[in-house]
Amino acid sequence: MTETTTARPVDASAPGNATTAWLADFEKALTTRDIDAAAGLFVDDCFWRDLVAFTWNIVTVEGPEGVRDMLGQTLDRVQPGGFVIAGELGEAGAETESWIKFETSVGRGIGHLRLRDGKAWTLLTTLDELKGHEEPKRDRRPTGTEHGAVPDRQTWLEQQRREAQELGYVTQPYVVVVGGGQGGVALGARLRQLGVPTIIVDRNPRPGDSWRNRYKSLTLHDPVWYDHLPYIDFPANWPVFSPKDKIADWLEMYSKVMELNYWGSTECKKASFDEKAKEWTVVVERDGVEMTLRPKQLVLATGMSGKPSMPNLEGMDVFTGEQHHSSKHPGPDAYRGKKADLTFASIPYRILHVFQIPVYDAIHERDADFYARLEKAGFMLDFGEDNSGLFMKYLRRGSGYYIDVGASELVANGAIKLESGVDVERLTENAVVLSNGKTLPADLVVYATGYGSMNGWAADLISQEVAAKVGKCWGLGSDTTKDPGPWEGELRNMWKPTQQEALWFHGGNLHQSRHYSLYLALQLKARMEGIPTPVYGLQKVHHTS
Amino acid sequence: MTETTTARPVDASAPGNATTAWLADFEKALTTRDIDAAAGLFVDDCFWRDLVAFTWNIVTVEGPEGVRDMLGQTLDRVQPGGFVIAGELGEAGAETESWIKFETSVGRGIGHLRLRDGKAWTLLTTLDELKGHEEPKRDRRPTGTEHGAVPDRQTWLEQQRREAQELGYVTQPYVVVVGGGQGGVALGARLRQLGVPTIIVDRNPRPGDSWRNRYKSLTLHDPVWYDHLPYIDFPANWPVFSPKDKIADWLEMYSKVMELNYWGSTECKKASFDEKAKEWTVVVERDGVEMTLRPKQLVLATGMSGKPSMPNLEGMDVFTGEQHHSSKHPGPDAYRGKKADLTFASIPYRILHVFQIPVYDAIHERDADFYARLEKAGFMLDFGEDNSGLFMKYLRRGSGYYIDVGASELVANGAIKLESGVDVERLTENAVVLSNGKTLPADLVVYATGYGSMNGWAADLISQEVAAKVGKCWGLGSDTTKDPGPWEGELRNMWKPTQQEALWFHGGNLHQSRHYSLYLALQLKARMEGIPTPVYGLQKVHHTS
Repeated sequence: MTETTTARPVDASAPGNATTAWLADFEKALTTRDIDAAAGLFVDDCFWRDLVAFTWNIVTVEGPEGVRDMLGQTLDRVQPGGFVIAGELGEAGAETESWIKFETSVGRGIGHLRLRDGKAWTLLTTLDELKGHEEPKRDRRPTGTEHGAVPDRQTWLEQQRREAQELGYVTQPYVVVVGGGQGGVALGARLRQLGVPTIIVDRNPRPGDSWRNRYKSLTLHDPVWYDHLPYIDFPANWPVFSPKDKIADWLEMYSKVMELNYWGSTECKKASFDEKAKEWTVVVERDGVEMTLRPKQLVLATGMSGKPSMPNLEGMDVFTGEQHHSSKHPGPDAYRGKKADLTFASIPYRILHVFQIPVYDAIHERDADFYARLEKAGFMLDFGEDNSGLFMKYLRRGSGYYIDVGASELVANGAIKLESGVDVERLTENAVVLSNGKTLPADLVVYATGYGSMNGWAADLISQEVAAKVGKCWGLGSDTTKDPGPWEGELRNMWKPTQQEALWFHGGNLHQSRHYSLYLALQLKARMEGIPTPVYGLQKVHHTS
Repeated sequence: MTETTTARPVDASAPGNATTAWLADFEKALTTRDIDAAAGLFVDDCFWRDLVAFTWNIVTVEGPEGVRDMLGQTLDRVQPGGFVIAGELGEAGAETESWIKFETSVGRGIGHLRLRDGKAWTLLTTLDELKGHEEPKRDRRPTGTEHGAVPDRQTWLEQQRREAQELGYVTQPYVVVVGGGQGGVALGARLRQLGVPTIIVDRNPRPGDSWRNRYKSLTLHDPVWYDHLPYIDFPANWPVFSPKDKIADWLEMYSKVMELNYWGSTECKKASFDEKAKEWTVVVERDGVEMTLRPKQLVLATGMSGKPSMPNLEGMDVFTGEQHHSSKHPGPDAYRGKKADLTFASIPYRILHVFQIPVYDAIHERDADFYARLEKAGFMLDFGEDNSGLFMKYLRRGSGYYIDVGASELVANGAIKLESGVDVERLTENAVVLSNGKTLPADLVVYATGYGSMNGWAADLISQEVAAKVGKCWGLGSDTTKDPGPWEGELRNMWKPTQQEALWFHGGNLHQSRHYSLYLALQLKARMEGIPTPVYGLQKVHHTS
């Protein structure tokens, strides 16, 4: 812990010095273990968001009481200090807003601070690396040379082949990741750099297949510069909204050059946790051969939009045409979309919708004619219950929106016909019968009925009991449709400890896969190294699906 | 052409202003076509190195007379202007040293200037992009979206597949690149970005095989951060001297994600230029099927160390053991190595050895004992004829050195035995007979006899006549062993027009492949677009091999 910021007298009126002064006061309070003084440095409606640095969890506490509670349970162990402004992380937005750096007993962290009236309004603290387990990059990278006459030296290729032959057979991985989309791959890359033996299993043959198998006109929904994976940026010449097959090829090459143990054509059949041995038994079928893996940690990275929610309709068994879930459909559908920035990490979920509503109000106003035509055609338009739009829907329920690239016009002009405000009563051999009595002849039925909670994967792979113990994944407890309260503060069960020891959920879009894979990887690495990881604020379960 | 630098009065005593003043004077002289005034701005022993910007060639002229000659033949067409200091390219080394920017009638350039006594000592000018043909990157990248209801729209994948099916069959490439190592691949990526239809052919199945097939302990000889390919940097976690198979995997993924038309398992059998049609006929055998390509431009990127030079020894036909060139040998050998920096582009080859000699003097002194032991063991040690070391040997002859990673110690301690100062007289069925009468029994003979000039490829593929017309490739004319004079100023025939219209040579290490591929790609693009490209100072041929 450094004391540079506490020693100097500070002129709080100079630019940037309000932050410096606050950090000095904060550090002094923490160093002297004066929790009341520390809590007194926050405004009444404050938020402190911690990603693993203080809590070994992903938690937002609210108000001085929340701060007091968190510090009371973590301060002695965390021993935070060395708080300074981190200008190198990006320019501060204003006098009262700064990127910061700090240290804990076991790691180094970065964060963000917003002041109001000289007190903290929002504080973000994140763990960036573990001391003594820093990633071997830049000035820490290996030389790649082994000088001298070493008769039985192994080349990189020989070592790589040996690992591929032995891991899972002769030796056991510390982590098994089920699912090799952007989530599994980004996490796998982090774990490789941290020296955590990992196998990623995916039922599809090649990395990227989870993109290749989606509908043909799919492109990125976020600009490509927001979607980088760790370690290798997308090139500057890539299309803003890059096409799915290009992303798929990138994921495939990424898995190769990041040296992941990626087991394609491998289905995870069954997993169970041995509470005594503190070990998973994971049965997989690799290229048709069943075998057992025994990792200490199991990560389900099967996708927050990976588990199709299928309706149960009368006649589904007699319909002779084709019927499939939208995720299997090669035509237009969208399963995620948002526009945000890394800085969003510093904005508490509790108030995020307040920033979103004016954006969607403006959109609504600008395209008012278009929306009127859509509604006239029967389109059941909504902007979310509080008009906070698509991004909040993504976080709250992961459904209820789509991104128009032309189909809306076809709806508005009648080329695509709607039957809205009705239910499907049943299917016949060659038609869909609606609750208003209409019969629609059909060759193909596509169920755009959304996705189930990720703990459904745990039910399939582990047991219904574990799925219920872990509870619903994703969503914030916003008390809106498909996201019942109470308020959780963070996405349920994502990238953090769950009620099932050694079971983790990883998912989300490319940005989330990059960003949160760091915190999940650090949690796994710490456990492998035997660093104590007492969890503050382990999430309670209010909903099982 | 902008006039911002000519309008303002300049205080030459302020930091950086000597450069600004010089640039203003230079621009004024060029704008008024006052060649004498321009030449008068250079010191007597000056060097002006131009990469394509003024000359459509790679040329270094020397002295005010050289400047006068170059400007006399190019100035009216080039119409240079807008000379300014380019601080964004990197900090100037000193008051008298600066990165610069400028424009020409057809493009934008960057460069470097060193002043001495207020006059130019070294000037580097390079073409960076063609106006109206800028690469679609960063703010120019495509959106990747095509909004609206487009019934027969093609996806990226469909377009890619269609191109792969049609190019070379239905449509003809503008460029064929023979050889898909780092050179061919880097050039192919540039040409793809510039919209120049290109096919790369390589006899090996997969990109990277030219690395995979080398000896097993091979790693990069330069630090990995010096070796980036265009558009995608090696990640920060890669070993400083990355292993060959890792580089190979990178080249393979790079070819894929940069969307190159890479024809593996394709041998170039024969090529000839139709002087009337201004078109090449290139016969290739792709996966066993012979076919003909008709590009306008042919690039030989078969490697400056790609054409093994085999000795012709009596008894080679009777020796029953194994014998092969070092390039085919899986054991220790090295075929290139140097340490330099992009800034080297601004140091004239004529005086480069002056910068190198002190470095090797220091190495020689530090490891004096080691070198003495090596010489005692019979090792024929040398540091180049002028003691300028390995890097100058690389540029002058591309041979005569190796990089020790342990074998030298085995030579010094006698574990590897030498017979030096003798010739091979002949081979017998199971031995090598030396000129000193000794007979060495042998199961394997490796010929570490270097590589031939790249125009040997032209002899094989095109004709002996064209190879002789083009002349020797590589080397500077330093008048040292294997690099006979006269002085050429630049590497012979590399990345620039040759005496054979529409025939180009591309090669060198990863750094050169990245750096010079830009200038070669711009030359090819300009020709495809019909931009006039009169060549100043086309190289004369003094040696045919």
